[in-house]
Amino acid sequence: MAADSWSTTTSEVYQQIEQALAANSQFAVATIVDVEGTAYRRPGAKMVIESDGTSHGGITAGCLHDPLQKDANAVLESGSSTIVTYDLTNDDTWGLGLGCNGVIDVLIEPVDDSWQQVVDARANREACSLVTAIESDDPSIPVGARAVINERGSRANDRRIRERTPLPNSVIADIEADARTCATEGSTDRISVSTEAGEIVLVVDGIEPSQRLVVFGSQPDVHPVVRFAARVGLEVTVVTARGGRADDEMFPTADRVLAAHPSNLSDAGIDGRTSVLIMSHNFVDDRLALEAALDTEAPYIGLMGPRKRFEQLQSDLEEEGVELSKRDHERIATPVGLDLGSDAPVEIALSVVSEIIAVSNGRDGRRLVGQAGPIHDRQSVTSQ
Amino acid sequence: MAADSWSTTTSEVYQQIEQALAANSQFAVATIVDVEGTAYRRPGAKMVIESDGTSHGGITAGCLHDPLQKDANAVLESGSSTIVTYDLTNDDTWGLGLGCNGVIDVLIEPVDDSWQQVVDARANREACSLVTAIESDDPSIPVGARAVINERGSRANDRRIRERTPLPNSVIADIEADARTCATEGSTDRISVSTEAGEIVLVVDGIEPSQRLVVFGSQPDVHPVVRFAARVGLEVTVVTARGGRADDEMFPTADRVLAAHPSNLSDAGIDGRTSVLIMSHNFVDDRLALEAALDTEAPYIGLMGPRKRFEQLQSDLEEEGVELSKRDHERIATPVGLDLGSDAPVEIALSVVSEIIAVSNGRDGRRLVGQAGPIHDRQSVTSQ
Repeated sequence: MAADSWSTTTSEVYQQIEQALAANSQFAVATIVDVEGTAYRRPGAKMVIESDGTSHGGITAGCLHDPLQKDANAVLESGSSTIVTYDLTNDDTWGLGLGCNGVIDVLIEPVDDSWQQVVDARANREACSLVTAIESDDPSIPVGARAVINERGSRANDRRIRERTPLPNSVIADIEADARTCATEGSTDRISVSTEAGEIVLVVDGIEPSQRLVVFGSQPDVHPVVRFAARVGLEVTVVTARGGRADDEMFPTADRVLAAHPSNLSDAGIDGRTSVLIMSHNFVDDRLALEAALDTEAPYIGLMGPRKRFEQLQSDLEEEGVELSKRDHERIATPVGLDLGSDAPVEIALSVVSEIIAVSNGRDGRRLVGQAGPIHDRQSVTSQ
Repeated sequence: MAADSWSTTTSEVYQQIEQALAANSQFAVATIVDVEGTAYRRPGAKMVIESDGTSHGGITAGCLHDPLQKDANAVLESGSSTIVTYDLTNDDTWGLGLGCNGVIDVLIEPVDDSWQQVVDARANREACSLVTAIESDDPSIPVGARAVINERGSRANDRRIRERTPLPNSVIADIEADARTCATEGSTDRISVSTEAGEIVLVVDGIEPSQRLVVFGSQPDVHPVVRFAARVGLEVTVVTARGGRADDEMFPTADRVLAAHPSNLSDAGIDGRTSVLIMSHNFVDDRLALEAALDTEAPYIGLMGPRKRFEQLQSDLEEEGVELSKRDHERIATPVGLDLGSDAPVEIALSVVSEIIAVSNGRDGRRLVGQAGPIHDRQSVTSQ
């Protein structure tokens, strides 16, 4: 296990898979496909395991490291996918009264060419569903048989899968609508399908592209924002304001630094999975950047500064004939950030990045302790 | 300006001051003492400026870097403190319609031996108030005249101040109660005092010791928590659970790693400014650690795991005769963290550290955009 494998972001897990494919390395992927009772992570959570024991990401609170490694090695040796059930309800087995009182089903499989389509979909900013047989009475469909279906419903070109049994078209037809939904929502589902030869159970694992963050501004308070955002796996582009340099060394943790006129953010790659943060501290530039951001699909537009400043920006935009819609008001976050009560730049950055994560997951950032009901809204998982 | 001066934490600003004192370096400190209108930071915010232009921390959004440097150099040359007003309402002066529509008063002073008492107070985990004359009609009390008063009201030993005019005892008697309040609250105040020779205005700048975080656990999910906590300036101690190693290399960003029996956290330095986070994932150890944490002054006790697990812990404690008080229920945070909606370990860590910051500031982490009124509750500052 890498010393800090648990600081690995979801994006980094996919980068490991991409690198393993490119280098033809022997890597295994472990994906939680089902949880009964409580567990640390939800279905869809992934961990990459190398044959030498190095792992990236984590799917349990460390307790299953050794059994996972052993099972992953068996998969790498056989080249066949397998589904393993880890029962954590039995304290005597896993020792010392472990907190996870649950049973988790984990799909362990080799990183083979069926993953190339996931890597390609992410590179193309498309969500896809990885559909995999995890139980089967049909001898023609082994555990691990697979199809990749992207969010628009076009089935990826399975002729590119040579190292895995493809799922037959008849099965795909039955689950395609569900697979599209899971892709769009990034959710995970289990579906039973009857074939002529028997029953099969499929796991449909929706995989979204990385969340992006485009920061407009180049003042020093951009730095801590970029650092935190990169640390949680956002793909960060800094757009330096008018006259700013576009120098990667200015923001070493950003994925990209661009110089652009604030009225033209079209090179920044803003799509429906991109949060925009406007913090040039220049009133005119912020107005132009806000107007440009409103023309994109960005679901979140954070604007640094007090509410009164936004009201002035809005009134200036109205004078130009730009009226904000209800949807615009919903996506504009100003004052930006969660209420952490601190004015130190590094804590403001923490509050802004936390808000971006919360909004991308449809949450409001309030303390969990004050809320009733399970934390996760997917499936039956009730733990953290 | 250091490339990423704005990722400097408040703790690091004080560390710079401590190092400057130890090395007898020529450093200046700029402290915001008053804000009219909107500004980036609140009174009390500090920045350390070296004579070569290197700075640590930030008190404006970058716009005042050059004037601050010039004024700091003048202070370093003269050895005298000065108060400078920066008027950011005049766009033509600071250029391009800057967002900060405010006037800020900044005290610029040399790091001299009057700061040693602040450094000592922080090392002793005591809050203190730095009381400084910023206006004076009294010729015996120059701008910069100073006293340091700690939160218990005992005036620090001013015989140790040789490089600064001490405030007379008659003035201190007038403001001592306010100075104690500011120290305890970490707040900043301005007070006018009449002396026989005229009117003086004092700024009372409450300075608290660092917030501590004690994490009980050594599973891999501790790593991202420690990284984020250290990044925002919490002083982090990791207490490894039963059988765990106490190896600083395990958690390189922690200030300290201890091995302790979970029932004895007395070496961890838990005081009224310490958040405790219990995440050993071991039910018995967590119960013992919770019981030990409840015996401390910790205002926050985060407990990783689902609510049901806490209910089981509580019922076990009750069987032992340990009843939780209302105050205990208020300080126990479980499920731990702000609701960011993600289950990835790095995002859970973000949510937990954000909650710790919010709670230490008396906030609930909700999005600022949904809240009415000014963001900061101190003085008349209305900006971020």
